[in-house]
Amino acid sequence: MSESRGRKRTGGRGTRAADPQELARGIQSGDRVLLARAITLVESRRDEDARLAAEVLALTASRRVAAIRLGVSGPPGAGKSCLIDNLGCRLGDEGRRVAVLAVDPSSSLSGGSILGDKTRMDGLASRPDAFIRPSPAAGTLGGVARRTRESLLLCEAAGYDVVIVETVGVGQSEIQVRQLVDVLLLLLLPGSGDELQGIKRGIMELADLVAVNKADGGNLDRARGTRAEFAGAVQLLPRRTPEWKTPVLLCSALTGEGLPELWREVLDFREHLLQRDLLDYRRSEQELFWMDQLLEERLLERFHRHPAVAARRKEIRGEVRAGRLSADAAAALLLKQFS
Amino acid sequence: MSESRGRKRTGGRGTRAADPQELARGIQSGDRVLLARAITLVESRRDEDARLAAEVLALTASRRVAAIRLGVSGPPGAGKSCLIDNLGCRLGDEGRRVAVLAVDPSSSLSGGSILGDKTRMDGLASRPDAFIRPSPAAGTLGGVARRTRESLLLCEAAGYDVVIVETVGVGQSEIQVRQLVDVLLLLLLPGSGDELQGIKRGIMELADLVAVNKADGGNLDRARGTRAEFAGAVQLLPRRTPEWKTPVLLCSALTGEGLPELWREVLDFREHLLQRDLLDYRRSEQELFWMDQLLEERLLERFHRHPAVAARRKEIRGEVRAGRLSADAAAALLLKQFS
Repeated sequence: MSESRGRKRTGGRGTRAADPQELARGIQSGDRVLLARAITLVESRRDEDARLAAEVLALTASRRVAAIRLGVSGPPGAGKSCLIDNLGCRLGDEGRRVAVLAVDPSSSLSGGSILGDKTRMDGLASRPDAFIRPSPAAGTLGGVARRTRESLLLCEAAGYDVVIVETVGVGQSEIQVRQLVDVLLLLLLPGSGDELQGIKRGIMELADLVAVNKADGGNLDRARGTRAEFAGAVQLLPRRTPEWKTPVLLCSALTGEGLPELWREVLDFREHLLQRDLLDYRRSEQELFWMDQLLEERLLERFHRHPAVAARRKEIRGEVRAGRLSADAAAALLLKQFS
Repeated sequence: MSESRGRKRTGGRGTRAADPQELARGIQSGDRVLLARAITLVESRRDEDARLAAEVLALTASRRVAAIRLGVSGPPGAGKSCLIDNLGCRLGDEGRRVAVLAVDPSSSLSGGSILGDKTRMDGLASRPDAFIRPSPAAGTLGGVARRTRESLLLCEAAGYDVVIVETVGVGQSEIQVRQLVDVLLLLLLPGSGDELQGIKRGIMELADLVAVNKADGGNLDRARGTRAEFAGAVQLLPRRTPEWKTPVLLCSALTGEGLPELWREVLDFREHLLQRDLLDYRRSEQELFWMDQLLEERLLERFHRHPAVAARRKEIRGEVRAGRLSADAAAALLLKQFS
């Protein structure tokens, strides 16, 4: 099979024949269609796509914008999408180019909401200077986040100078997203207590900024109470960043109130990191984290492709299925094939 | 060093000298202290502890009770602990021996709630016929769930005929917990919409039973509305278990109302599986899942212990930290050492 036919076959999921050089040039010239196509390659599980994605990443590595990487996390219903929509449009008006990537671990089975998807980020979606990309619907959390990292790098290659990573959830996803961003914002709902919000101490510790959203109309008093409660809780936590006391703000994604102050804090925090050489430190720690993630992924791949493993896997799985072999014994047996 | 001194050294985290035979006998005779000690070995990251845990698991493998394995999942604040407490006490009164294992992915950093821990499962905790074990505070989600599986097997060896696995979260943790249990109950709050509850389609699809908790007092109408909403949503989902339509019930963990009906449904679902040979099928699929998990864990362990990998890891990490090597290049370099 010729090289060009091999390339053509990679066109699943809406991509057409992909030439890495062409993709790289297109991305660098700000072509959103080609950026989306490259991200589709990043998210693909096909070998040929992965190879192409790696080429595009390498070709664009030397000319990436140093974007502000902002993570937005928080319990379901906190209004993350609405906040990103409003904030993103404001930043666009200021001349920023905003890209949004969404990581949603709970969609790993069949994805989407049960009671019908609402339209989200309407304002931002209609802007030619913005780029929005939802998470892939399949794969492990680790894999999704690794792909999100590569998508983020592609957005920077495309010149987006603010990249916002949104994540839903109350656990693992924040831990991964913190490894992607310079600033992690935790968005809360007006309402009392961490039990309701599902926010654990560990997640609180990850946040660089906290904001209580929906601080508008009849919610204002409750939002103030929540703010006071969490401001008190933050005091008791160890500081993750030297000389930085995590601020707890009020905002309303609906009215826009508090958003300029929130963005100010994002910039302040980043400046705080820069002035202390902590941004480089944070990013190098992140690289180490992703090195471990990549190692894990590639090691497993190598294992499953090993001829002796591949030769016996089916039979061993059959024995487990028939109840003649335990998970432990089967794992040990397969590992023995790999040497 | 003599065998017995080696054993003595494994006594971290409150365990004393552990003889696997003694532990196995103690567990089988219903000694809760020895059961707890064996679970501590399961959760330990020390090699010697892991070896001991494997021995205890092997020694008790042939005489386990065929327990009803029930998973309880749902958004934070749904009242999972309260439900398990009330249900567990009722089952205890019926002569059942109930064990509860909690998996909490959000506690993987420093654990615990921010605004102070509440006392949970008071009733069950005071019963001599029950056993409650919180999740370990550290480790990856996969690792925690794998350990929970081994703890579950130990509980069955100790004769607990109902093992309840509780999980907080709106994503990955349910996917893992479903691989541990015969029946997965999704507990909801009265309130409208999946956006608020953080329940995605994929999680809904995992549930074998759904119950709206807190259906009492002034909440009753809202709970009925939520029930109708989700009962409608469930209709639209593909059936994961042939001929089983996931029921959506109302209950109150506080007053106990609806709990007998809920338990009836748990038994009905299990009977449904048994009559169609689906319980064995489900458990063998679970064994395959855990085989893959164990493979992954042990493969990584082998990799990191490989002499050539171990020899260069520090240097390569240093290069990444200094920004001279990317995560991708470093991962490739370390993988090359492993052959």
